[in-house]
Amino acid sequence: MATEGQLPVPPAVAATLSKEDKFNLITKDLDEVLGADLLKSILEERDLVAYWGTAPTGRPHLGYFVPLAKLADFLTAGVEVKILLADVHAFLDNLKAPIELVAHRANYYKALISAVFRSLHLPLDKVTFVLGSSYQYSQEYNLDKYKLCSITTEHDARKAGAEVVKQVSSPLLSGLLYPLLQALDEEYLKVDFQFGGVDQRKIFTYAEANLPKLGYKKRAHLMNKMVPGLSGGKMSASDPNSKIDFLETPAQVKSKIQKAHCAPGEVEGNGVLAFVRSVIAPIGELMRGQGRSAERVWAETPEAVFTVKGDPKHGGSVRHFTSTEELDGAYAAGEVHPGDLKVAVVQAINALLAPIQAEFANDAAFKEAEAGAYPPEKKEVVKKKEKKYTPKPEHLKTEEEKAKDRAAAEKAGLGETKDLKKVVDEIAKAI
Amino acid sequence: MATEGQLPVPPAVAATLSKEDKFNLITKDLDEVLGADLLKSILEERDLVAYWGTAPTGRPHLGYFVPLAKLADFLTAGVEVKILLADVHAFLDNLKAPIELVAHRANYYKALISAVFRSLHLPLDKVTFVLGSSYQYSQEYNLDKYKLCSITTEHDARKAGAEVVKQVSSPLLSGLLYPLLQALDEEYLKVDFQFGGVDQRKIFTYAEANLPKLGYKKRAHLMNKMVPGLSGGKMSASDPNSKIDFLETPAQVKSKIQKAHCAPGEVEGNGVLAFVRSVIAPIGELMRGQGRSAERVWAETPEAVFTVKGDPKHGGSVRHFTSTEELDGAYAAGEVHPGDLKVAVVQAINALLAPIQAEFANDAAFKEAEAGAYPPEKKEVVKKKEKKYTPKPEHLKTEEEKAKDRAAAEKAGLGETKDLKKVVDEIAKAI
Repeated sequence: MATEGQLPVPPAVAATLSKEDKFNLITKDLDEVLGADLLKSILEERDLVAYWGTAPTGRPHLGYFVPLAKLADFLTAGVEVKILLADVHAFLDNLKAPIELVAHRANYYKALISAVFRSLHLPLDKVTFVLGSSYQYSQEYNLDKYKLCSITTEHDARKAGAEVVKQVSSPLLSGLLYPLLQALDEEYLKVDFQFGGVDQRKIFTYAEANLPKLGYKKRAHLMNKMVPGLSGGKMSASDPNSKIDFLETPAQVKSKIQKAHCAPGEVEGNGVLAFVRSVIAPIGELMRGQGRSAERVWAETPEAVFTVKGDPKHGGSVRHFTSTEELDGAYAAGEVHPGDLKVAVVQAINALLAPIQAEFANDAAFKEAEAGAYPPEKKEVVKKKEKKYTPKPEHLKTEEEKAKDRAAAEKAGLGETKDLKKVVDEIAKAI
Repeated sequence: MATEGQLPVPPAVAATLSKEDKFNLITKDLDEVLGADLLKSILEERDLVAYWGTAPTGRPHLGYFVPLAKLADFLTAGVEVKILLADVHAFLDNLKAPIELVAHRANYYKALISAVFRSLHLPLDKVTFVLGSSYQYSQEYNLDKYKLCSITTEHDARKAGAEVVKQVSSPLLSGLLYPLLQALDEEYLKVDFQFGGVDQRKIFTYAEANLPKLGYKKRAHLMNKMVPGLSGGKMSASDPNSKIDFLETPAQVKSKIQKAHCAPGEVEGNGVLAFVRSVIAPIGELMRGQGRSAERVWAETPEAVFTVKGDPKHGGSVRHFTSTEELDGAYAAGEVHPGDLKVAVVQAINALLAPIQAEFANDAAFKEAEAGAYPPEKKEVVKKKEKKYTPKPEHLKTEEEKAKDRAAAEKAGLGETKDLKKVVDEIAKAI
């Protein structure tokens, strides 16, 4: 599915790397690695097999670049990457959505992630997309799930999901099952390690403790740092400016980044700086390794990871940073103006999106998947239903009324509660 | 599979009964009926379809006569009875038991329940045995299960299972799933009502509230009174005298009943009197309806439901009771000696067991199922392992040590905790 504007895929880098190089690249910049010795011992024998999961619920947004940039490291190090498209769970997230829609979304996620990988000149022959439904209904899987249920207390399940599943005084059983299913996926996908955000840590340790009780291997677990949303804090569905879609135009990207929260001198919780650190810089480094330094429009010297052109009206000049730490330091010291940073980030994002959008424009199947996944008709329904929707203070509603409201809101595309949950899940999975 | 000593099956009684008679027989002596109007409206059109479930874990004991005596009423009233042999759950109750053993146990349960029905001269053409595994692994069932999980909070699941699932501060997820699965079984078995002990009430109301949310019919629920164990209080695996196996000899039955707790004048919690009330008397009534009064060795006049021959040394004489209320009253007034009551109950139990044991003795498949279900080799392992088992005070053990102990104890057949749980589940299901 090569499209115009793409360079030919370079020879696999993995073949040129030593076992140590591979291990270092695989574990580079991670927040935590559980089972490093296991990985090293497997690397003595063969390349690794990894799994990263995502539920095709909403629309993937730029936050997805974060785990995908790390998956790029894995692929470069010869890891076989399995991407779980958790369609069963995506469907269950919204009982009102027909399963066919989820199938389209899974197609879109697959097309999009493939396009991102191609834009990063990564070989796709070591990437496998697996639909959850392809094995999660099997007798074997279900029996194992029941087995896990019979050795897992509510307390342990709740603890395992503490940072991923929405914390309420009485969680839904589906939330309690979440860690069990995620643990089991490791066995059914036959992987050596699972990758996710550090918020997954308790699910990962649950898996390490419980898979062996079913007679299965304990896997290693690699964790990314958590990254704030572009607006700072958590991304939110109710704030369209907090996330940027992969298909947004350069003008839309510019507008959203300009609105992003990026207080002068504030590094902590700064989504714009975090995006440079966790996406733009690593991708730039990958491109440099691929001999594509010249294509990194956001780094104007071969040594730089990022270039900020200080606008004279902000009193700045052009600065080439050779590390993100250096950039963070300069920003903290007030030497980099937020406006100048944003201009550079807009340029970088648009550069990253260009080949993906070009592929989308030229790929009928990709466009079809997008149209099927997010049918425009829904918006019309919104307007009609919106008038019928009479809000009542939340605290006065019965549980039944709340459920009714949610159903109505979802039908009308107003499902803020659900969407928010989805986005939280997405971010948790994605970052 | 008709065996010696059995009378020919009489013509179905149902054909001679009016809709009202059927309803009255179906709901006779129950503790509670939810959905009476639903049953009546279906009876206007056709006979009913019911479901009663049992997990083939341990050995069925005389307590099973209680629900089976009530199922006899259903069958007499033309109800199609589906008996769910919940093999998946039986297997999961003890991860160490190979699934093959459970298959044998399901066979044994089926053979035994069939033999009981035959001993009661009930036609078996309206009885269907269904293995849980025949549908509980299907994609459809699992998707529905997930749907229920996504609309059921931990709080509601816990509440629903409150009287059936062992109450601990942090229950196992399998226990939380229990009510959901039981609700779903109603739809998958396509029944009009579910029957169980009144301890199932909260599971039943959970089913009534939640099946319609999945677009399924709300079913009626019929509940038996709870019946104490023969020793009074709950039956216990660690007290072999608290339950009597269907295959025990007349001498064993006599010995166990003689040891049964049966305080003079005490009706409340008296397992011996309760057994007369909930098993012996109803079965006698059934036999009278079948024109078999003469066979009721425990009721020596056609009008009597129970006869107690007062031993002169206890200062008593022969008394024929025409109702169990009359018997209870006389017992409360001290007019019936516990020893005399026990003699009559032993005679009744042995009379009830005789045709079942005769069928067992003459049916190779029945004997084979029993041998496969409860292989004697296990006992040898007990003795060997017992010596290695060094107890340590429970409160000093880590969770890991406790888990190890449980595993070791189970392997050695010493799994008291597990067994006790099984028995509680069994009683809950059976009574």
